[in-house]
Amino acid sequence: MPTLEFTVYKGSEGGKIIEGTSVANALAPNEVLIKITHAGLCGTDLHYRGQDMVLGHEGVGVVQQIGTQVTHFKVGDRAGWGYLHESCMNCENCLTGDEILCPERHMYGTHEHDRGAFASHAVWNESYLFHIPDEISSSDAAPMMCGGATVFNALEKYGVRDTDRVGVVGVGGLGHFAIQIAAKMGCEVVVFSSMESKKEEAIRLGATEFYPIKGAKELKIGKLLNQLLVTTSQQPDWDMYLSIMAPGSTIFPLTVSEGELKLPYEPILVNAIRVQGCICPSRAIHMKFLRFAAFHKIKPVTQEFPLTKKGIEEAMDRLDKGDIKYRAVLVADKA
Amino acid sequence: MPTLEFTVYKGSEGGKIIEGTSVANALAPNEVLIKITHAGLCGTDLHYRGQDMVLGHEGVGVVQQIGTQVTHFKVGDRAGWGYLHESCMNCENCLTGDEILCPERHMYGTHEHDRGAFASHAVWNESYLFHIPDEISSSDAAPMMCGGATVFNALEKYGVRDTDRVGVVGVGGLGHFAIQIAAKMGCEVVVFSSMESKKEEAIRLGATEFYPIKGAKELKIGKLLNQLLVTTSQQPDWDMYLSIMAPGSTIFPLTVSEGELKLPYEPILVNAIRVQGCICPSRAIHMKFLRFAAFHKIKPVTQEFPLTKKGIEEAMDRLDKGDIKYRAVLVADKA
Repeated sequence: MPTLEFTVYKGSEGGKIIEGTSVANALAPNEVLIKITHAGLCGTDLHYRGQDMVLGHEGVGVVQQIGTQVTHFKVGDRAGWGYLHESCMNCENCLTGDEILCPERHMYGTHEHDRGAFASHAVWNESYLFHIPDEISSSDAAPMMCGGATVFNALEKYGVRDTDRVGVVGVGGLGHFAIQIAAKMGCEVVVFSSMESKKEEAIRLGATEFYPIKGAKELKIGKLLNQLLVTTSQQPDWDMYLSIMAPGSTIFPLTVSEGELKLPYEPILVNAIRVQGCICPSRAIHMKFLRFAAFHKIKPVTQEFPLTKKGIEEAMDRLDKGDIKYRAVLVADKA
Repeated sequence: MPTLEFTVYKGSEGGKIIEGTSVANALAPNEVLIKITHAGLCGTDLHYRGQDMVLGHEGVGVVQQIGTQVTHFKVGDRAGWGYLHESCMNCENCLTGDEILCPERHMYGTHEHDRGAFASHAVWNESYLFHIPDEISSSDAAPMMCGGATVFNALEKYGVRDTDRVGVVGVGGLGHFAIQIAAKMGCEVVVFSSMESKKEEAIRLGATEFYPIKGAKELKIGKLLNQLLVTTSQQPDWDMYLSIMAPGSTIFPLTVSEGELKLPYEPILVNAIRVQGCICPSRAIHMKFLRFAAFHKIKPVTQEFPLTKKGIEEAMDRLDKGDIKYRAVLVADKA
């Protein structure tokens, strides 16, 4: 088999997107060559824009070639991938399918490599690829590979129940997934947003209640919340939200933020509140998410851009300004 | 039945302990009169020293009279109580024995009343009293009513397993319980203390490893921790401890502190760490603790003081200076 050459889009100092070429040797026995059709743009991609690496970690495409020992994919299948971690297969967590909690974990299929989702092709070990259910379009699937999956992970892994009352702060890339997923889990969904204009969409997505919080100093919401997913790009007024958390409830700070997490001490202690750090899921939960999303017709609200240097730059600039409703998808067909 | 009169010790502005008298009417059908023999002194009592209320919430004594409908206690039984909350018996939590998480919870048997553990007698509803197992002396039982029970609650309620590696920061009133309980649960127990002199005692209590941390800027402990119980009176160097927490691990900030809980954001998120606020247990877990402690011969290291105005003041002054090894017990016999 000949050497494989494909186009990739990298970050660079100063933030310009650089078009380049990556080369892969012939496929290893368990590897798959994917022609990328769609790539989601995630908030964390902005952090890598200044670095000399291929960007993008929400990839979806079509299998073009398979290695000699590939068993789960065939040519023509759709396949997707997200932020994944290698299984060391030598610790309690990896051996029970919880590779995301491996103490030795190493990233797989992301910015560590000269491959990524902002590219014409990618080569991955088949174990790290997901089949895309027929019910989900490739464009809709892309933002599920990290954004959607991370929100599902919070709700699924940490024991949210159908009888819970779930708060969602922010109606954006993560928040609009959170509303849909929690609603389909059977929960009451209580949404907080600084933009009153988002009420209608929040209700359409499954919100039970909507509270505009611009300028609010206190919240009156009736029954207290069992969970709160914070999806805004900055930390919220924690005092205000802690006053509406039930004893024994859980806060998920999904915002990727630097610096310190500063919470008022006393209500956390007195009300036995759990603050649960949370990232993207292990593969087993990711698979469950795709099945759940297909069954419940969960889909993101997206804006499409061409999967080109110019398209990537435009999408990134708009994401940086908060001007994407609600997830950007880069599309190869539009290139 | 005549009116009951008994001696109580109250706080006051300025911190002097005031000896007074409380009066209880004849026992209600489900009430019990206890002659107090021992009272534990807990760190939180210091917060109430300046207030006009009867102090003490770790009481142990002997039943002297019972109301007409009391069924679980008889005259002569030993009985104890701690920080308890009333069951509303009208919410999901109370109905499943988790009254500590009742949204409407009200304290019972504590500083809310003109009764408390620093007194000659107390009258309580029998439902809020615990039998003291024969294996546990009344003096040892007193500090188990809040301090010991709170530590057990953290470990029991939040899923600590025998195969876990549990860190304990601080060898004091709570820490010396934590070491014993975690060790008897079958865990590896890794102890951190600023006082190297406490190593021998920590090992005797069940510690597997001991690390002096005075002046330490980083910790090297081999395998990462699954849990960390922080029992010191001030917040620790969180950065240092986060570096030894396993992905998916739990931190229990048991310290009662004011102000903010300031944690570095990124490691909490990236390592999916849980910060679990935690207080005293529901009654069901308190009962399990007493049974567990009796079976495993868990007992506090105590210093006894007379249950008098002078004894209380001395014990409080010494606790305030950190000069108690490790829990103070006020004893009526010594009065």
